[in-house]
Amino acid sequence: MSKKWVYLFEEVEEAEKYAGSWDGVRGLLGGKGAGLADMTRAGLPVPPGFTITTEACNAFLANNQQFPEGMWEQTLEALRKIEEKTGKKFGDPSNPLLVSVRSGAKFSMPGMMDTVLNLGLNKETLEGLAKLTGNPRFAWDAYRRFVQLFGKIVMGVDGEKFEHVLDEWKAKTEGGQDTDLTTEMLQEIVKEFKRIIKEETGKDFPEDPYEQLKMAIAAVFNSWNGRRARDYRRINKIPDDLGTAVNIVTMVFGNMGWDSATGVAFTRNPSTGEKKLYGEYLANAQGEDVVAGIRTPKPIDELAKEMPEAYRELQEIADRLERHYKDMQDLEFTIERGKLYMLQTRTGKRTGLAAVKIAVDMVKEGLIDKATAVQRVDPNALDQLLHPMIDPNAEVQVIATGLPASPGAATGKVVFDADEAEELGNKGEKVILVRVETAPEDFHGMAAAQGFLTARGGMTSHAAVVARGMGKPCVAGAGDVLIDYEKRQFSANGVVVREGDYITIDGSTGRVILGQAPVVEPELTGDFATLMEWADEFRTMGVRANADIPRDARVARGFGAEGIGLCRTEHMFFEGDRIDAMREMILADTPEARRKALAKLLPLQRSDFAGLFREMDGYPVIIRTLDPPLHEFLPREKEEIEALAKKIGVPAQKIYDRIEQLHEFNPMLGFRGCRLGVTYPEITEMQARAIFEATVEVKKEGINVFPEVMIPLVSDVNELNLQAEIVHRVAKEVMEETGVEFEYKVGTMIELPRAALLADEIAQTAEFFSFGTNDLTQTTFGMSRDDAGRFLPLYVERKILPDDPFQVLDQKGVGKLVQMGTELGRKTRPDLEVGICGEHGGEPESVKFCYKVGLDYVSCSPYRVPIAKLAAAQAALGEAERDK
Amino acid sequence: MSKKWVYLFEEVEEAEKYAGSWDGVRGLLGGKGAGLADMTRAGLPVPPGFTITTEACNAFLANNQQFPEGMWEQTLEALRKIEEKTGKKFGDPSNPLLVSVRSGAKFSMPGMMDTVLNLGLNKETLEGLAKLTGNPRFAWDAYRRFVQLFGKIVMGVDGEKFEHVLDEWKAKTEGGQDTDLTTEMLQEIVKEFKRIIKEETGKDFPEDPYEQLKMAIAAVFNSWNGRRARDYRRINKIPDDLGTAVNIVTMVFGNMGWDSATGVAFTRNPSTGEKKLYGEYLANAQGEDVVAGIRTPKPIDELAKEMPEAYRELQEIADRLERHYKDMQDLEFTIERGKLYMLQTRTGKRTGLAAVKIAVDMVKEGLIDKATAVQRVDPNALDQLLHPMIDPNAEVQVIATGLPASPGAATGKVVFDADEAEELGNKGEKVILVRVETAPEDFHGMAAAQGFLTARGGMTSHAAVVARGMGKPCVAGAGDVLIDYEKRQFSANGVVVREGDYITIDGSTGRVILGQAPVVEPELTGDFATLMEWADEFRTMGVRANADIPRDARVARGFGAEGIGLCRTEHMFFEGDRIDAMREMILADTPEARRKALAKLLPLQRSDFAGLFREMDGYPVIIRTLDPPLHEFLPREKEEIEALAKKIGVPAQKIYDRIEQLHEFNPMLGFRGCRLGVTYPEITEMQARAIFEATVEVKKEGINVFPEVMIPLVSDVNELNLQAEIVHRVAKEVMEETGVEFEYKVGTMIELPRAALLADEIAQTAEFFSFGTNDLTQTTFGMSRDDAGRFLPLYVERKILPDDPFQVLDQKGVGKLVQMGTELGRKTRPDLEVGICGEHGGEPESVKFCYKVGLDYVSCSPYRVPIAKLAAAQAALGEAERDK
Repeated sequence: MSKKWVYLFEEVEEAEKYAGSWDGVRGLLGGKGAGLADMTRAGLPVPPGFTITTEACNAFLANNQQFPEGMWEQTLEALRKIEEKTGKKFGDPSNPLLVSVRSGAKFSMPGMMDTVLNLGLNKETLEGLAKLTGNPRFAWDAYRRFVQLFGKIVMGVDGEKFEHVLDEWKAKTEGGQDTDLTTEMLQEIVKEFKRIIKEETGKDFPEDPYEQLKMAIAAVFNSWNGRRARDYRRINKIPDDLGTAVNIVTMVFGNMGWDSATGVAFTRNPSTGEKKLYGEYLANAQGEDVVAGIRTPKPIDELAKEMPEAYRELQEIADRLERHYKDMQDLEFTIERGKLYMLQTRTGKRTGLAAVKIAVDMVKEGLIDKATAVQRVDPNALDQLLHPMIDPNAEVQVIATGLPASPGAATGKVVFDADEAEELGNKGEKVILVRVETAPEDFHGMAAAQGFLTARGGMTSHAAVVARGMGKPCVAGAGDVLIDYEKRQFSANGVVVREGDYITIDGSTGRVILGQAPVVEPELTGDFATLMEWADEFRTMGVRANADIPRDARVARGFGAEGIGLCRTEHMFFEGDRIDAMREMILADTPEARRKALAKLLPLQRSDFAGLFREMDGYPVIIRTLDPPLHEFLPREKEEIEALAKKIGVPAQKIYDRIEQLHEFNPMLGFRGCRLGVTYPEITEMQARAIFEATVEVKKEGINVFPEVMIPLVSDVNELNLQAEIVHRVAKEVMEETGVEFEYKVGTMIELPRAALLADEIAQTAEFFSFGTNDLTQTTFGMSRDDAGRFLPLYVERKILPDDPFQVLDQKGVGKLVQMGTELGRKTRPDLEVGICGEHGGEPESVKFCYKVGLDYVSCSPYRVPIAKLAAAQAALGEAERDK
Repeated sequence: MSKKWVYLFEEVEEAEKYAGSWDGVRGLLGGKGAGLADMTRAGLPVPPGFTITTEACNAFLANNQQFPEGMWEQTLEALRKIEEKTGKKFGDPSNPLLVSVRSGAKFSMPGMMDTVLNLGLNKETLEGLAKLTGNPRFAWDAYRRFVQLFGKIVMGVDGEKFEHVLDEWKAKTEGGQDTDLTTEMLQEIVKEFKRIIKEETGKDFPEDPYEQLKMAIAAVFNSWNGRRARDYRRINKIPDDLGTAVNIVTMVFGNMGWDSATGVAFTRNPSTGEKKLYGEYLANAQGEDVVAGIRTPKPIDELAKEMPEAYRELQEIADRLERHYKDMQDLEFTIERGKLYMLQTRTGKRTGLAAVKIAVDMVKEGLIDKATAVQRVDPNALDQLLHPMIDPNAEVQVIATGLPASPGAATGKVVFDADEAEELGNKGEKVILVRVETAPEDFHGMAAAQGFLTARGGMTSHAAVVARGMGKPCVAGAGDVLIDYEKRQFSANGVVVREGDYITIDGSTGRVILGQAPVVEPELTGDFATLMEWADEFRTMGVRANADIPRDARVARGFGAEGIGLCRTEHMFFEGDRIDAMREMILADTPEARRKALAKLLPLQRSDFAGLFREMDGYPVIIRTLDPPLHEFLPREKEEIEALAKKIGVPAQKIYDRIEQLHEFNPMLGFRGCRLGVTYPEITEMQARAIFEATVEVKKEGINVFPEVMIPLVSDVNELNLQAEIVHRVAKEVMEETGVEFEYKVGTMIELPRAALLADEIAQTAEFFSFGTNDLTQTTFGMSRDDAGRFLPLYVERKILPDDPFQVLDQKGVGKLVQMGTELGRKTRPDLEVGICGEHGGEPESVKFCYKVGLDYVSCSPYRVPIAKLAAAQAALGEAERDK
């Protein structure tokens, strides 16, 4: 007996038994199939149907695109069962059974084949349908849709060719809507469609319903490996070997007249989280009309008036599903002549704002507990709440308003196509992609843009859905925006905006603003604050911020940072006149001359440090001694060099010589980090003095101050020893001079492989470690961040590496060194304080890794502190089984 | 009871019991003390004496320069014993005991306090000595020497001040020798010496013999931390915590008349190894006269005529000591009125040539076995035998001195650019390439030159590295060489050398010599060949060579290489017209255009590989695919760029653009290694084809060929997989096309920390590993070899690092990765072939580490093959306890 490849919706228990868990069922039947089966089990009105498993898909793809043995037979058998249930027969002109064929992977994925409706229609069954319904126009409309979708999706004909024909015919009608097309027109249209298909593919449109079904199933399977599906999986870290299931469902018709409708609904508002049925529908339409934005759908509220009974039932089902799944659901439904059918339920995607509100509300409603709420919110989604918003007090020129499809504000240059967006985006330019509508093939450009503006489409249009998924702002359906692709410009209420002009979009209000609007910082209040409080209840690992100046430290503290994990002192040297003293120091020939120049920097650094300490009252502040190569501080342009020469009174040639002398082939691996302090101990001496004098200064003000002096780029304990001796000596001197005692620590960055390998020796001197995973990644991979652009994108695209290791910590390689360094360090010094201050400290997966390895804290940019805190809380709560 | 700090020479058994071994005795009593004690035990004529231990020295230095408790009392007690033995009394005017005070560490060390003779003399004992010997002049001569040495060494007065006085007085005599000074003169001299001492130190010369002794002992202890002693220990890797012993020995007098003498002797010739007493002596003199070169000493042969009895006894003792220590000894002796006294025996230092001959001879004599002979020779010393040397007897005019960057001597005409060097070189002329610095584009000229002289750059500059790789002499960083490219000449210390003039460079010493100095060529023959044969009997680890061209491969094989461990294919691309095809490839915009350019390189590479295979008949040849960043292949100068543009028919702007595009901030961490092959698979494809077509070609000639294709800079197994797939596919294609089957392997360099950390995964694909320890050192330390010059010398000088890690493998850090990589790799693939191809492969300590870790082979430059083989043999024999 061959394997079971096909499950009827009612065979859900059998599937669960085979798969072992509900997550297993979702893997086997896909999210959509599992939802339909589950609703069927719950007695909800789901049309009869069945699912071909993801295993069948994988077998098909592995076996040269042959259906696995027994699959087709099982499909036919399942079809027989449906025929029994519905009393209709597949391919039978007298009472034809029509089906929809839909893909459905474990995780919902745009870019995969979506839906073929009305499959089973041909000349004969069409006639039967017309007779049966007494509605030839309906039958021809259904056929037109089927041929169009099948031609495009299954047979691969460019969809625009069909649209073009349809538009021409619609233009001939008075109303201009597709519902205005007559039966005769539809017949002509189908004829033209079939001609196009023959022309484009060389093949006739298949008349045999079984042939249609076979082709559709194969197309769904193959769509798993389509370019866009692969892109999506790459970006969203979905494994390639899951496969997709195929759902075959008895057709119900939302286009059977004005007592029929089709729509989508969320059980709560996916943008704001408001607890209220949210969605849109179209009367007398089929599913794809809603998403495609051909007619503008109506808000779901109106359904309550138009079809109150169906609406009531929908609301009831929505409540029931939410209680069942304990999460906000995304529903698809069709009303056929007044009767409601559920076609899908799945956990709904939502904005960060909505995720937070829904999680907090559901706790209040008693639906979930705090731990679940904390685990429910994707830390990355908080990013949306942490982005600057348009200053409400600013005067801005609003040139159009659309739907607030995905919140947040974005500014950028206008571009009109995805390729252009990608090109400029990769160059680091900020762009806003402006399209009449977006389509899955625009995905690469959307990934590179700051936000999207569309002239057509609703809250569930492609642009809106993708934007929310990416956490990017989107204004959709801004009807006043008239785009002229050829002239590469758009006009809106009389204002003409050309490609390259700046606009700002506000996805929270739907405003489209001319130019670059001023933005304000976000705040940690309301539900967000509540959720973060809960997170803090579960969190065990500390979260600090990387901040170089008091202003950043204040922001960080506002977001809940528990200290500073990295203050890069050199950033202070670039401000104002300080750079001159720095340059004088670099140009000095003797320790004395260097000391003289450094003496000018001492009071400035002291006051900077005092400022940081005040902001971080009660928390530790890690200050790193001078790190970058000295040539970074020297001027490059002739004029600047000559001006400097005059200012500090040295011959210009001397500056040129020093620049030449300091030139490095590989500055990343050059004369920097503690190598500077070892060679010029007077630099470390000055910095230690500034730190400790500032410590004394604020201590006298009553500030609780815990300075930690961090020596960078250590590769051997001997380097650290030399630097630590200086710091300890200066600390003693300052205590003696001022008579004030203070606590402090001396530690090191672990940012070179050798430091991690010899961490046991280094911990003999170091009182704390901070993993500098940026440089550790560069050296472990032998890959310069500045130069990797030439090959790293290809590496990520081709999955040679799962992620850009500068964004997501490479747990296998770099992480092995982090773990080894931590273990070795603690072997020597069990109370060693260990943290991370690379940019990975604010990336949720990396934060969870740090938790697993046992770090004491992570440190990240101020704006990512809440993200890190939430991720740390989730890590502490254990990996939750979450819907991606 | 206090610790035993003092051992009489006859207490050697007690010392041995305490120290546990003879090596322990040498540690406790120092080499000199141990030798004296051992000779005393053997009944040889050693004057009575005792040794204060190194433990006393360390206690003294640790305890604020206070003698440890009981030490002085034990010293006095030992002195009493000597008094008993000699019948003399310390400080007794009637029969004064005089002693010498000498330092003596475990390893002989210049720079430490050497000897104070005649200690115990003062006005009273002097008179006694004069009376006793009936020789007032002798007594005053002894006193003059004592005051002079004590003043200089113990009291720290500039020795020249004494010499000056002495010279003035000698000038007043007829003979002009110190032996011509009269008693009265000596009295005047001593008076002046004491005045100088008072003037310089503010202190009177101590009259109390016990005070003299105390001061001398303290001075010896302190000399352990003298600047020169510390420098010597740093350079010779002698630990700082050994301390020095102090030997106090009854004076015997070589200056008691013409029947007295003092001298040094080696039991065999330390330059040539000849088995014949070798040394020199002075009659009527004290020890320091011989070393100081005040009078010219006579060859030891003459002693046979002058004092035949003493000579015979000395020869007998020499033979006995050699038989006892089974090694060549370095002796000091004094003859007092015809009676021979032995004052020192220690293992003698020797040249590489002598080391080899003595080891081989002693085996033939039955004194040692082959294993001992192999262990006896320092592998580094062989370097001297492997390069042409300037005839040591020739008179040469040294015009400048630089760094000895690559050993050996070369003579040739001066040329100032690479093209010129190539042109003349191809005509068979011998040229020396003289450049401010060299760059990769000079490679063709370097290949054609006999050696290189650069004005700038260190031991790891491009010129130095290439030179060592090629086994050619190089003097680098000769700052006095001022090059004027325009006038085509250089000047050095006032000498102007024009293009075409002959110079000779000595890369072993750094000398730049005007004209053609006579040079002697190296050969692997005679004793050297014998020793290498013995080494091969014990050696278990393989030794291959790094060689890029057939000529180098031939040299390597001549020196005993067992295959090629690294062929850098890119070196082949710089020759002649090849660079144009390479550049065309780099400038190509499409895979097709690249393939076209690569097709031109294919036959050239194939013939290169065939040449290598022929030279290495029967041995494996590892060929690395393209490694360096592409910009290294592009021209830099305007003229060159424009010439290239014309030649290959592209606009010059395009070349400029590509150069700009390929610019990297950190080329070391950039677009290179397998990243090239992953991005442009057609390059790997071409190289694989060239390798396998060459394999088939030579196989048809009957050559035993084992190509191993090595993928560089792998950080993840996925990269290797992509490259290995190409290589396997091409291998299959070539086999099918030619009908010839062949063996081959695909493996990888392990040169990034991540590769070592994930070696278990990488070994799933790699059939062999080769540790590229040059790059692995750079990335593990985060230290660019090209840029480390600014801080690394300081690091080595201050012992922050024990060695330059680019010269001696950093076993603790980089070595940990080598070990980890080897173990992980073999866990996956137990028969994994593992080797090393960094420059460390020819450095003896590193070779021994490789043995310890279990590598299958090391690979090094052809000229270091014998060194690596000897080191590998020694590793297999186990660390020998050798005198440093």
